[in-house]
Amino acid sequence: MTSNGSAANGSAPITADDTLPTTMRASVLLGPGKVIIEERPVPSPGPGEVLIQIGSVGICGSDVHYYQHGRIAEYVVREPLVLGHEAGGRIVAVGDGVDASRIGERVALEPGIPCRTCRECKAGRYNLCRDVRFFATPPIDGTFAEYVALAEDFAHAIPNSLSDDAAGLIEPLSVAVWACGKAGVGAGSRVLISGAGPIGIMNVQVARALGATEVTVSDVAPARLEAARSFGATRTLNALTENAVDAGIEVDAYIDCSGAPPAINQGIRALRPAGSVVLVGMGADEISLPVGIIQGRELTITGTFRYANTYPTAIALAASGQIDLDGMVTTRYTLDEAETALSQNNDPTAMKVIVQPGRASTR
Amino acid sequence: MTSNGSAANGSAPITADDTLPTTMRASVLLGPGKVIIEERPVPSPGPGEVLIQIGSVGICGSDVHYYQHGRIAEYVVREPLVLGHEAGGRIVAVGDGVDASRIGERVALEPGIPCRTCRECKAGRYNLCRDVRFFATPPIDGTFAEYVALAEDFAHAIPNSLSDDAAGLIEPLSVAVWACGKAGVGAGSRVLISGAGPIGIMNVQVARALGATEVTVSDVAPARLEAARSFGATRTLNALTENAVDAGIEVDAYIDCSGAPPAINQGIRALRPAGSVVLVGMGADEISLPVGIIQGRELTITGTFRYANTYPTAIALAASGQIDLDGMVTTRYTLDEAETALSQNNDPTAMKVIVQPGRASTR
Amino acid sequence: MTSNGSAANGSAPITADDTLPTTMRASVLLGPGKVIIEERPVPSPGPGEVLIQIGSVGICGSDVHYYQHGRIAEYVVREPLVLGHEAGGRIVAVGDGVDASRIGERVALEPGIPCRTCRECKAGRYNLCRDVRFFATPPIDGTFAEYVALAEDFAHAIPNSLSDDAAGLIEPLSVAVWACGKAGVGAGSRVLISGAGPIGIMNVQVARALGATEVTVSDVAPARLEAARSFGATRTLNALTENAVDAGIEVDAYIDCSGAPPAINQGIRALRPAGSVVLVGMGADEISLPVGIIQGRELTITGTFRYANTYPTAIALAASGQIDLDGMVTTRYTLDEAETALSQNNDPTAMKVIVQPGRASTR
Amino acid sequence: MTSNGSAANGSAPITADDTLPTTMRASVLLGPGKVIIEERPVPSPGPGEVLIQIGSVGICGSDVHYYQHGRIAEYVVREPLVLGHEAGGRIVAVGDGVDASRIGERVALEPGIPCRTCRECKAGRYNLCRDVRFFATPPIDGTFAEYVALAEDFAHAIPNSLSDDAAGLIEPLSVAVWACGKAGVGAGSRVLISGAGPIGIMNVQVARALGATEVTVSDVAPARLEAARSFGATRTLNALTENAVDAGIEVDAYIDCSGAPPAINQGIRALRPAGSVVLVGMGADEISLPVGIIQGRELTITGTFRYANTYPTAIALAASGQIDLDGMVTTRYTLDEAETALSQNNDPTAMKVIVQPGRASTR
Repeated sequence: MTSNGSAANGSAPITADDTLPTTMRASVLLGPGKVIIEERPVPSPGPGEVLIQIGSVGICGSDVHYYQHGRIAEYVVREPLVLGHEAGGRIVAVGDGVDASRIGERVALEPGIPCRTCRECKAGRYNLCRDVRFFATPPIDGTFAEYVALAEDFAHAIPNSLSDDAAGLIEPLSVAVWACGKAGVGAGSRVLISGAGPIGIMNVQVARALGATEVTVSDVAPARLEAARSFGATRTLNALTENAVDAGIEVDAYIDCSGAPPAINQGIRALRPAGSVVLVGMGADEISLPVGIIQGRELTITGTFRYANTYPTAIALAASGQIDLDGMVTTRYTLDEAETALSQNNDPTAMKVIVQPGRASTR
Repeated sequence: MTSNGSAANGSAPITADDTLPTTMRASVLLGPGKVIIEERPVPSPGPGEVLIQIGSVGICGSDVHYYQHGRIAEYVVREPLVLGHEAGGRIVAVGDGVDASRIGERVALEPGIPCRTCRECKAGRYNLCRDVRFFATPPIDGTFAEYVALAEDFAHAIPNSLSDDAAGLIEPLSVAVWACGKAGVGAGSRVLISGAGPIGIMNVQVARALGATEVTVSDVAPARLEAARSFGATRTLNALTENAVDAGIEVDAYIDCSGAPPAINQGIRALRPAGSVVLVGMGADEISLPVGIIQGRELTITGTFRYANTYPTAIALAASGQIDLDGMVTTRYTLDEAETALSQNNDPTAMKVIVQPGRASTR
Repeated sequence: MTSNGSAANGSAPITADDTLPTTMRASVLLGPGKVIIEERPVPSPGPGEVLIQIGSVGICGSDVHYYQHGRIAEYVVREPLVLGHEAGGRIVAVGDGVDASRIGERVALEPGIPCRTCRECKAGRYNLCRDVRFFATPPIDGTFAEYVALAEDFAHAIPNSLSDDAAGLIEPLSVAVWACGKAGVGAGSRVLISGAGPIGIMNVQVARALGATEVTVSDVAPARLEAARSFGATRTLNALTENAVDAGIEVDAYIDCSGAPPAINQGIRALRPAGSVVLVGMGADEISLPVGIIQGRELTITGTFRYANTYPTAIALAASGQIDLDGMVTTRYTLDEAETALSQNNDPTAMKVIVQPGRASTR
Repeated sequence: MTSNGSAANGSAPITADDTLPTTMRASVLLGPGKVIIEERPVPSPGPGEVLIQIGSVGICGSDVHYYQHGRIAEYVVREPLVLGHEAGGRIVAVGDGVDASRIGERVALEPGIPCRTCRECKAGRYNLCRDVRFFATPPIDGTFAEYVALAEDFAHAIPNSLSDDAAGLIEPLSVAVWACGKAGVGAGSRVLISGAGPIGIMNVQVARALGATEVTVSDVAPARLEAARSFGATRTLNALTENAVDAGIEVDAYIDCSGAPPAINQGIRALRPAGSVVLVGMGADEISLPVGIIQGRELTITGTFRYANTYPTAIALAASGQIDLDGMVTTRYTLDEAETALSQNNDPTAMKVIVQPGRASTR
């Protein structure tokens, strides 16, 4: 096997050396509350794909939700499923048509591969592709594993100044880059963000990086509000006792990261004429909204579904030091401890919990 | 008095001739269901204003609502109020600083004068000015009168090919130009419009003029659906028995002109990913909306409050023959008959009802 | 071979029947001024491709340029090249992964297949993909042939109301849809178009379909100006004796389809503040532009390179009758007569010249 | 005279106390190279105006140009002219209709008052108003004086954290806010700026505040490049020996602050497909531009003429500490020394030179 040049048509994938194992360990969800470690074959990168040794995976609320309930809306875990989609790692092999010089490259994994041929894909909105294959969304396995194969253009190079953890957190950072973009956040913007979990905090950081000068955050957990301040919020509101309108706050953009109807209604009322609302947090399918205000002030409301074309921006922001990702990590676990990690989510002092598949178990 | 050049500072207004009367007739709303004709002084145009002899005034749903209920939301008729804001006429005198050559010009009256100094005004969103003075919105008198004074830049010249009725209907046409603009209607657009009253029909016409190739209209009144087809709808749905989703309709833009929550919910569900919703119709202050769909498809929802900078466009569209305004007029009344006119609104075969202050009464 | 369902993996392509010939005729450019008919194998549609029997191909200025000069800028005809890229036809076979029910479908061929993985492709700007494979651009063969294979998502279904000629002319219509979109043409727009060749006329038609109310066209050929008027121009200027500024014309958008520096300079000067310039016509690599005016009026200038995502819109416009494509065809030739067709281009009374590969030669 | 509430109609202006002098000193340009100090009446604020005691005025290249040449393009100094338009100060009196509570407020003066009624003004592009009255543009006097009257909505409140110098420099900062906005600079943007004078440096700072992660600056003066680095440039190029393309630089946005044709041509060539060019620097009326590249990459080019609606943003950015204005001041002069100040401009180590009309002369 050559380690130089593209793989010949039909040949086996190229690897950096001949030491790649044939099997690997993966953390597999069998059903609600049931996670095991399985030995599985190391995937072989197909044409246009790279094989990545996973260094770090952030845990997302959706992972926890699948772990607890075995489903999210119409997505049901019917077969064993590998969770995890916030991943960073290193390319160790390439498939046909991929330049072998990428072997060794450290990358952030963008976790959803679209069909590339539908109207949404060709219009640049590949996040809205109905045939997207997204990690850890049934039946597509995710990244709680030692190796993962991925389309090479969705494996984004990162500089060495970024840690593997940071590479994984490019994913939730992308959510915020997308949301702040849709909200039109820019120089001098006044922004209200409801919900100070990881996505809320990412939005605080991105809003500040985009030049927002007033960033108010509301939440019910004091520990989260304190975190929001430490990551750049200029003001915080405890939603149990305060609300933006009564506090005299007027904003240009409101980004909901809570999914809570009362927060959303308050947030909308805090907007200036022609302001923007972006609904990021997932909650009820139907919410009563103040349509009279939306009309009278000509507000614009939209929601986000993942993101598109955000990875280069998110990586640049993190690499430039404008966004602090490592500082958001509160705990790190080995792959063996994935189930423990998935159980940490309700702790408000936990911000980002990480699983590092390559780290030796401490058990 | 000179009839040449601008009025000197502090002088009386310039008129085309010296025959302007000193008093005029106006139709005045005293309270719910109570309209009388009053003799009032002819207004004197202030600096920067023109005096317009009103030729035609369209009746809007808001006029009817004030007539029936004496209020719309927080706007209450506490003093006698002249209704009417869809007006066309002819300039007969000019105030200080206005070029006297405008005397004789036929114009469409844009009915809301903003403060010109607030953030919204300076940003080009003068419709959102909190200090706008809008005809027939308490306590500002409207145009059911023989003469009205107006800021000269809100008196828009019309070509002689447009009738006085058409000049008045530039106002509701502006509502549709604004709505279709916000909806992003363009070449090849597929549009759903709910509500086939005058505003719905105006939107049908504007959507077609903008290149929309599929324009579906829903309403409960067969007569209105028939009117929609005659003004360019490519398909109609009787909302009592059909809905867009079940009919397999997918659209790029949905414009609600009904204010009806079930219509709005259906309309949103008919949108393609990244589609647009514009809420024009007035209804409940709060409406339950399918937020899950808004997020999952990244739809954009906004509402309209009047319009800004639309008159030149609307006049050009009407003058070019792309929009038929005269064809929308179903009945014409004299000023004396204004109360009869205000009572016609619930007739679904009535499209636009007109009051012509300059026409001799037939009574 | 089955004619039902998708082609099995690795199997031969599916055809509507077993009568497909194994060879076909193609018109091949050997070098400047040298075109021959060659017998070539019928292409086999690859995975995700369809095989199309070509019904009609419009001749573009670029075809003529290759025929006359053997090159356009850095694109040099080094190997025999099949010209033609404005094509319509009918699907006669499908490759792996394509639904066989598409066999028999009449289609317009979008002629450039991008890489689908680069930044431009994923951002929805696939026309700017550096690895695009575009028909009749060396070394990619075009459509002056009886059969062509094409990625299935670039074969756009057309209704039976559109002729094969019209299907082919969806390509130049797309150029105009793209240009008018970039120029921001909409309801009530005042537009100046310089150059009344086929692309200029397409822009006239699209501008009108988008609601433009004043469309002025300049050219030096009276026959072309007459054509412009017949396709919707509201005013024409003979560029030899008139120019837009002296004629008192002010426009919102200026679209150059001439590539002529004097026309471009005049056009820019005719723009209102904040107006738009779109350069479509190809000319010199460097042109002196009135930068002082661009700054003082904050004009926006851009150019177009083909188009992206325009086919559905263009097809809808043509199908709705808002655009007349058949009326632009002035002559039709057989494949044998392709060289004659390529020689017609300098005749100003010729608008679109067509080659119909399926039509029996009249020779 | 009352010091409480709005001025009564037609009454004298309200002042904070009765100590306002009746005359003041102003620095007046009589002709090229000829500046004197004149005693003039203190202006009286008209209706809707405030009277401002000037604390600080930055010197702009246009001031220097008028001083040296007595004209800029068609603007000729025919009557004695007070220069200066980058001013900060304190409100000391208000005219009719202005809330007297504004007396004492510290403000940044936005120097151009538009007509408020033309198409551009009503569309939110008041910088393009043809009837704008702009300080220090003949025949409108500027701010090299102890007191100036200004429309109250163009006197923008500043927090006490901003110095008078910073208040004045909100004006050139606005130029950069406007330019970066037109260039679409945002999170992760790669930007090239040519010209590292005050406007170039302002653009560097704004680009960084907006999240740009790569900001390259080119100039011929090493001192200016060093200044660029100290204000946030991530890379600099000496235009005498280096150029962006040869240096392998690709950018999303190019902002010219030099007006130099070779810089502009180089900058355009450094752009990625679909990139943006904004021409801020003033230079020749006509420049030869690489139109082939503009078309092939679909670049967008525009220019700026002052700014609109930028003051609140600029003030928020400066107040938040994201922009350092005081650090850009290299020398301060008294009003008596205005001529000396105007002579400093060609020194590349001078960044912003300030005149402080309220400071006692050191002479």
